[in-house]
Amino acid sequence: MQKKCIHKNFFLQNSLTEELYHTMAKSLPVVDYHNHLNPKDIAKNRRFLNISEAWVMHDPYKHRAMRICGVSENGITGNATDREKFTNWAKTVPKTLGNPLFLWSALELKRIFGIEEFLSEKNAMNVWDNCNHQLQQEGFGTVDILKKFNAETVCTSDDLLDDLSYHQQATKEQGIQVFPSLRGDSILAFELPGFKSWFTKFENQSTQNIHNLDDYKSAIIAQIEKFSVAGCLLADHSLDSGFIFNIPIEKVIAETFKKWLNGNELTVSEIFQLKNHLLIFLGEEYAKLGWVLQLHIGAQRFTSSRLRKLAGPAGGFATIGKSCDIAGFCSFFDELEKKEYLPKIILYTLNPADNEPFATLTGSYAEDGVPGKIQFGPGWWYNDQYEGIRKQLIDLSSYGLLSQFIGMTTDSRSVFSFSRHEYFRRILCNQIGQWVKEGLMPDDMDLIGGLVKDISYFNIKNWLFK
Amino acid sequence: MQKKCIHKNFFLQNSLTEELYHTMAKSLPVVDYHNHLNPKDIAKNRRFLNISEAWVMHDPYKHRAMRICGVSENGITGNATDREKFTNWAKTVPKTLGNPLFLWSALELKRIFGIEEFLSEKNAMNVWDNCNHQLQQEGFGTVDILKKFNAETVCTSDDLLDDLSYHQQATKEQGIQVFPSLRGDSILAFELPGFKSWFTKFENQSTQNIHNLDDYKSAIIAQIEKFSVAGCLLADHSLDSGFIFNIPIEKVIAETFKKWLNGNELTVSEIFQLKNHLLIFLGEEYAKLGWVLQLHIGAQRFTSSRLRKLAGPAGGFATIGKSCDIAGFCSFFDELEKKEYLPKIILYTLNPADNEPFATLTGSYAEDGVPGKIQFGPGWWYNDQYEGIRKQLIDLSSYGLLSQFIGMTTDSRSVFSFSRHEYFRRILCNQIGQWVKEGLMPDDMDLIGGLVKDISYFNIKNWLFK
Amino acid sequence: MQKKCIHKNFFLQNSLTEELYHTMAKSLPVVDYHNHLNPKDIAKNRRFLNISEAWVMHDPYKHRAMRICGVSENGITGNATDREKFTNWAKTVPKTLGNPLFLWSALELKRIFGIEEFLSEKNAMNVWDNCNHQLQQEGFGTVDILKKFNAETVCTSDDLLDDLSYHQQATKEQGIQVFPSLRGDSILAFELPGFKSWFTKFENQSTQNIHNLDDYKSAIIAQIEKFSVAGCLLADHSLDSGFIFNIPIEKVIAETFKKWLNGNELTVSEIFQLKNHLLIFLGEEYAKLGWVLQLHIGAQRFTSSRLRKLAGPAGGFATIGKSCDIAGFCSFFDELEKKEYLPKIILYTLNPADNEPFATLTGSYAEDGVPGKIQFGPGWWYNDQYEGIRKQLIDLSSYGLLSQFIGMTTDSRSVFSFSRHEYFRRILCNQIGQWVKEGLMPDDMDLIGGLVKDISYFNIKNWLFK
Repeated sequence: MQKKCIHKNFFLQNSLTEELYHTMAKSLPVVDYHNHLNPKDIAKNRRFLNISEAWVMHDPYKHRAMRICGVSENGITGNATDREKFTNWAKTVPKTLGNPLFLWSALELKRIFGIEEFLSEKNAMNVWDNCNHQLQQEGFGTVDILKKFNAETVCTSDDLLDDLSYHQQATKEQGIQVFPSLRGDSILAFELPGFKSWFTKFENQSTQNIHNLDDYKSAIIAQIEKFSVAGCLLADHSLDSGFIFNIPIEKVIAETFKKWLNGNELTVSEIFQLKNHLLIFLGEEYAKLGWVLQLHIGAQRFTSSRLRKLAGPAGGFATIGKSCDIAGFCSFFDELEKKEYLPKIILYTLNPADNEPFATLTGSYAEDGVPGKIQFGPGWWYNDQYEGIRKQLIDLSSYGLLSQFIGMTTDSRSVFSFSRHEYFRRILCNQIGQWVKEGLMPDDMDLIGGLVKDISYFNIKNWLFK
Repeated sequence: MQKKCIHKNFFLQNSLTEELYHTMAKSLPVVDYHNHLNPKDIAKNRRFLNISEAWVMHDPYKHRAMRICGVSENGITGNATDREKFTNWAKTVPKTLGNPLFLWSALELKRIFGIEEFLSEKNAMNVWDNCNHQLQQEGFGTVDILKKFNAETVCTSDDLLDDLSYHQQATKEQGIQVFPSLRGDSILAFELPGFKSWFTKFENQSTQNIHNLDDYKSAIIAQIEKFSVAGCLLADHSLDSGFIFNIPIEKVIAETFKKWLNGNELTVSEIFQLKNHLLIFLGEEYAKLGWVLQLHIGAQRFTSSRLRKLAGPAGGFATIGKSCDIAGFCSFFDELEKKEYLPKIILYTLNPADNEPFATLTGSYAEDGVPGKIQFGPGWWYNDQYEGIRKQLIDLSSYGLLSQFIGMTTDSRSVFSFSRHEYFRRILCNQIGQWVKEGLMPDDMDLIGGLVKDISYFNIKNWLFK
Repeated sequence: MQKKCIHKNFFLQNSLTEELYHTMAKSLPVVDYHNHLNPKDIAKNRRFLNISEAWVMHDPYKHRAMRICGVSENGITGNATDREKFTNWAKTVPKTLGNPLFLWSALELKRIFGIEEFLSEKNAMNVWDNCNHQLQQEGFGTVDILKKFNAETVCTSDDLLDDLSYHQQATKEQGIQVFPSLRGDSILAFELPGFKSWFTKFENQSTQNIHNLDDYKSAIIAQIEKFSVAGCLLADHSLDSGFIFNIPIEKVIAETFKKWLNGNELTVSEIFQLKNHLLIFLGEEYAKLGWVLQLHIGAQRFTSSRLRKLAGPAGGFATIGKSCDIAGFCSFFDELEKKEYLPKIILYTLNPADNEPFATLTGSYAEDGVPGKIQFGPGWWYNDQYEGIRKQLIDLSSYGLLSQFIGMTTDSRSVFSFSRHEYFRRILCNQIGQWVKEGLMPDDMDLIGGLVKDISYFNIKNWLFK
């Protein structure tokens, strides 16, 4: 037991585990296949103004923790100064004990700035000065930090309308492979107030007018191809809690779309029909391009309207929705498979009650010669912490095949979060050591060391690029 | 490993854990913020006839265990003598090995009567005589036992129509703060056969006749104010499995109430509308009074009609219902927040599949200057045991902030259950020691000792009285 | 930590655990109360052609693992040779590390063939030759293997139309009690395309024509009595994910049945009505005969149509469906109890999110003099592995009474799977040792040894035959 949180062997419970981590996992490169980094920041190796701007002001996890502690919204996302916001966070850190934020913060301060103590009100101004000073030095730009964490490949998350030039620039100039991924949510967002204006923008960007559903689809295909040219390997859809898949009634879809195009309100059922139809269409297109389809399932994003207004739609106040409609997902995948265009899939869930069904679903669809076709993705969002990561590993191992797992991705907006690959790998090594101790795996370093290496790096590499 | 169940360090796995419990947690007072004690029993320091009457005959947990073992209902809740019922329980105890009842029983016999062995058929008559003898001595009344367990504050659960004079008498005369809490279920129980007679009684107690919904509301407000005067700090509603919240259609509610008042049957949907409407109304009133709103979610109380007839509606045969309608709860809280009257909330769930959503929901609503505004309450009812308590701590820690947790309450009808604060604190200390060992927390006694003290006592104290 | 997977003390973490297993559990006979063995194979002590036919070609668990690894369907269930299929499996084994298949395979090869190494591509041909050679010797028939695993009683799973003569032959000639159990699914399968032809076959086997629902019921009763004469003790229904119980509207049921009999399509709601009605009817009949009603709840069997065509309906591609309709099950049982014909019940669930509700439900119905009337059955199908077994034990212990648990059954088509009673007993002993270590149980060998013996053998023996 250690007074320091972050030491050489943190999370590693015995010598086998230490050996696994230090000889097998530690030095492997990172393929971060899903995140929300800004490609322009990478292309330009963007620098940070101060530690608050780099680390606190844009992090909804930290905002959430401060709110739970009663910090005023003004001191979190409001008009308080950068320094006040940092101080509020410093006061909050000791109160996050037990929450992943406590160790993440300690890990990030240690790995990036070499700071050993955990942050608190007491050392807040020292840390503020120390970090800000370092941030002005060489080696603290976006790319520098990514390289510190051994990032080899980075797949960002991009709207259909986003500029894809920075990815290519970053790849060429910065020595890290940066690929766009398609975040397809806006394509289907018929229920959101902003959809009409997104659609208009899309129509303007397209070379053709959109008079009907077929036009919409061909405009989408044209745009998707630009993603493919820019190196896109994955698409992504968030299917929030309450999403239901039903085989759509094909003959009315075109009319429903026209109804919307003509400015009429759609019913909830019509919106679902359109969404279901377009999901199948997109799934098929993704498969044709050899892309992966990622599904982020089970968020409950509508909670406090007050915080939505103050902090924006991704302001850290979302919660975990009820467990998912498994039968619906099964028929969605079956529908694509019947068309012989079922893409490779990564299932992420926010509700851990879906873990076992999803881990099991990895064995329900298969393709000759394609190992791990359906993936149960790593602990997502609120599950991306010690217990959540362990539970995902245990569930995948018990109900699927751990050996085929593509491992960790940050899903983060911040390069600081790349330290979490270390966090993940330590938990992975420790869990495998635990299994050896319990007798579930033999003490055979070839076998278990290979497993660690595959999950840390080689599986995702092979899975994504083959 | 020990032959005795209850020894100095039971549940405490290493020296750090022992230190945490014995120096930080053990001697702190108890604030039991939700229970079903009879305030009159406290006011009068009621004595017990015998150990069966004190410990077996009114305990649905024990009844349930005896039933599972095939004991005849007559020997549990029927015409058997007190002594026969005690003997049936004694025979059952060894069969509860692994269930919380085994250790609870041992703990209660040890702490109250100094008995070291676990109860069984063999020592049943010795224990019977021993306990009955002790119960006749000084120091075995209701208040004496509460004081043995260091009870400082006790919040009972009271119907809107209940007499509140005993709480004040108890507080004045017995040296323990006793406050009423409003159990609001009867106010909304339009679906139950007994509601009409409750309503008539309420109308008779009120100073005004109830001709419409507004009358009903103002009569409720008048009665609630009496609770407030008597020191009430919390209200409580049980929203059983199947409860759905939808924003009610305001304009028809008044008519629906009139329809019922005129003796007409309501549809299921109308009942839900009324319930939803009144919940919002009550939530707002509670907020105005600065009360806490407790929600007990997810019970399935209708199982065996046979046992309901024989043992009454709370006879220990209820089960865990399906996981809850999270989206509904979110819009309920949002509705109150929009009115700027969202009270502090404690969420209890009977289905542990709701743990992670509820632990996460603690970050979805917030108020400037109010730490821990939304609480995920301690393991409730069937979850109030070793694994259930651990899971609640782990889930709250992983998905929320453990540091803001208000800790344990008994939710019990029996003063013997106050020994469970010890049971809880030992599990808490052990879990924190486990986290230190695993590297999730630093071995820093200021930090972790403070956490233990806050969760054991100081958080609830501050949260409830500020 | 051991390089060998299977050694004397595998899964046993300390000396107490070792003592528990080796002195209490190891040598007790096996009552396997639910499996899919072929009674004819037992009656004839059937021999195996080769290790592929015995072990690989008919095992959907292994097929599933090979598919996840990208093995072509042809090499799994297609035209590949027996040897090629075995080789594909051998290549897959190291990739199952962490999945139960890895240890199961090692355990089966060790216990049946004395092979110490785990199977892999490297030793595949040696193992192939070795096993095939042994399979040709005396002592490798179906019954020989069952006896190796100390099988005393075996309850198979049989359709209402199945031949029951082999069970009696097996019991008489082979020294193992073999009883049929009724798999009642086909009786209710109005939604399946094959139901009409099953029904015609049934009508032909019956002595009477079926002109209405009453005829159908009396024909069922006549057939069920044949099961009873053949020693049947249990019936079994699979209520897949999405199953809803509602009290059926009795007066229209007879007409609905007639509607179907006259060749009309039924609506989904009519099918549910018929199923619900017949389930109550059957439950009552089972109770009259003193049978146990087993419910296998929560499978999602419809996933990939492609695999269903290639590998058959039980081809290993099913997944876990959403958590169950607890309220519905409660009213189903209540309905039977009101008729005073609630049989003993075993609840199995595929979705572990139902564990806690089902473990709790064991206390919701009871019968004087019948211990453990409602059972929460052992980890079923995908849950029948290390973590799933542990979770079932922990949940049953925390929410019900472990002491009344009837323990393990294989639910398997293969006699090799009888090694899993050892696997289960080791986990059981280890878990109890863990509880002693954590302080939840006293270190009292009479008490904990008795618990191990009861769960391993005596409970099921008493429960089934009394």
